[in-house]
Amino acid sequence: MASLNDAPIGVFDSGIGGLTVLNALWQTLPQESFVYLADTARIPYGTKSREAVIQYAQQICRQFIRHHRIKALVIACNTASAHALTTLQQEFSDIPVLGVITPSAMAAVNATRNQHIAVIATEGAVRSRAYEEAIAALDKKIRVSSEACQLLVSLVEEGWLEGDITDSIIQRYLQPLFNGNNTPDTLVLGCTHFPLLKPRIENYLGKNVVVIDSASNVAKETRHLLEQRQLLSTEHSKPTQFLVTDSPQRFIATAGIFLGNSLDESKVQHISV
Amino acid sequence: MASLNDAPIGVFDSGIGGLTVLNALWQTLPQESFVYLADTARIPYGTKSREAVIQYAQQICRQFIRHHRIKALVIACNTASAHALTTLQQEFSDIPVLGVITPSAMAAVNATRNQHIAVIATEGAVRSRAYEEAIAALDKKIRVSSEACQLLVSLVEEGWLEGDITDSIIQRYLQPLFNGNNTPDTLVLGCTHFPLLKPRIENYLGKNVVVIDSASNVAKETRHLLEQRQLLSTEHSKPTQFLVTDSPQRFIATAGIFLGNSLDESKVQHISV
Repeated sequence: MASLNDAPIGVFDSGIGGLTVLNALWQTLPQESFVYLADTARIPYGTKSREAVIQYAQQICRQFIRHHRIKALVIACNTASAHALTTLQQEFSDIPVLGVITPSAMAAVNATRNQHIAVIATEGAVRSRAYEEAIAALDKKIRVSSEACQLLVSLVEEGWLEGDITDSIIQRYLQPLFNGNNTPDTLVLGCTHFPLLKPRIENYLGKNVVVIDSASNVAKETRHLLEQRQLLSTEHSKPTQFLVTDSPQRFIATAGIFLGNSLDESKVQHISV
Repeated sequence: MASLNDAPIGVFDSGIGGLTVLNALWQTLPQESFVYLADTARIPYGTKSREAVIQYAQQICRQFIRHHRIKALVIACNTASAHALTTLQQEFSDIPVLGVITPSAMAAVNATRNQHIAVIATEGAVRSRAYEEAIAALDKKIRVSSEACQLLVSLVEEGWLEGDITDSIIQRYLQPLFNGNNTPDTLVLGCTHFPLLKPRIENYLGKNVVVIDSASNVAKETRHLLEQRQLLSTEHSKPTQFLVTDSPQRFIATAGIFLGNSLDESKVQHISV
């Protein structure tokens, strides 16, 4: 039997946003193999209730772990991390289960100089107050200002990553957060879609604001945890497998925006929930 | 036992877009009572596969008809109408089941003078080619140009119904359709969210293009059918009941954009699927 070190890492998202996390994981852990699971039949989680998200995440991760021997599970979705991480960590306590929120919260707390952090996310993630709680757990004195930016998600999925419309929408959402005195000096991109808009967001904010994206931070944290538990791969990586709960067609069409090049159809498999 | 005439009309949508249809039904049939069912746990249908949409629509409409004695069912969702109408009409053959596509297609065919109709809709509805088929069934010589306008849906749900961003996005989607020679003289708003953008769309297109919205046309068709089958209500209308499959909180928050005033919480009930 192959050693657990050479088992793949499971990456779970409601849809395609988690591909920014997968991209960061590929770069940070080039020797590892990955299975990416997207619950596209029930996308998006960002507008659903806490109860619904916990139920969906639990159900699908059980199936994931049953059918794929994974050595770690990365919840590459802010909403699922906000609502379901603790439940998933308790249920699957024999493997490391990581969410995207704590690593970003840590990076933001390290980055801020004026103790004021802004967070942009989906409605569900903002409503959950998960970033507020994660930051408060690290440093109670830090002020957090949040804004739900639902339209940025659609903007990314439409592939409109630059141009006047994109810049205007970014400005409309960010202006209220960065207006007046003592504005945040750090912005957390609290949605896995948003790293694709990072260049335009940084362009709008200028050099005085540090922009933290959850993708690269959770990738670093995954490496750290695998090192700590001596779970790093000893072999070469295998091609990433993709599992989707709705028809692969749309996933493949949009995945190209996230991965920079198109996805080979044979790598994407439909599974039912 | 009360007569079937005084039973409510069921209105089904994946989410809140169908509220534009409900609004039109209220105006066209002021004596009727309505039950509005939104499958918010599985919203949006517009990006899901045909198979998934048929499965969801069938499952939820069975439950709808089992628990509420409705005298007619209006599928107030373009995607569900495109994929699932025939299946639903076959399964629930004892009551009239109406979709939003045929009434709009008929209105568009009547309106066009140059035999060229444009349709804007969600990805799912465009991919289904349901408008092309419905229009071809009425007049094969008519040319149909379609465009998926996914971002307009988020724009409406965010409540950004006017302003520069809204106008720019409308322009970006419509320009390719109305550019060059022999452009369409009729535009079908093939998504129930879009009637809320009708004033800005009409402003962009000017007076030479007729804009058809599915809400008012399906309401007229419903009245026509109830008259024909002698099913019109003989009593005063009862307050509309709302059923949602995810938590009512977000539905109530966004419903205000569609109904013009806020929804009484006591009228919205959560049901599980």
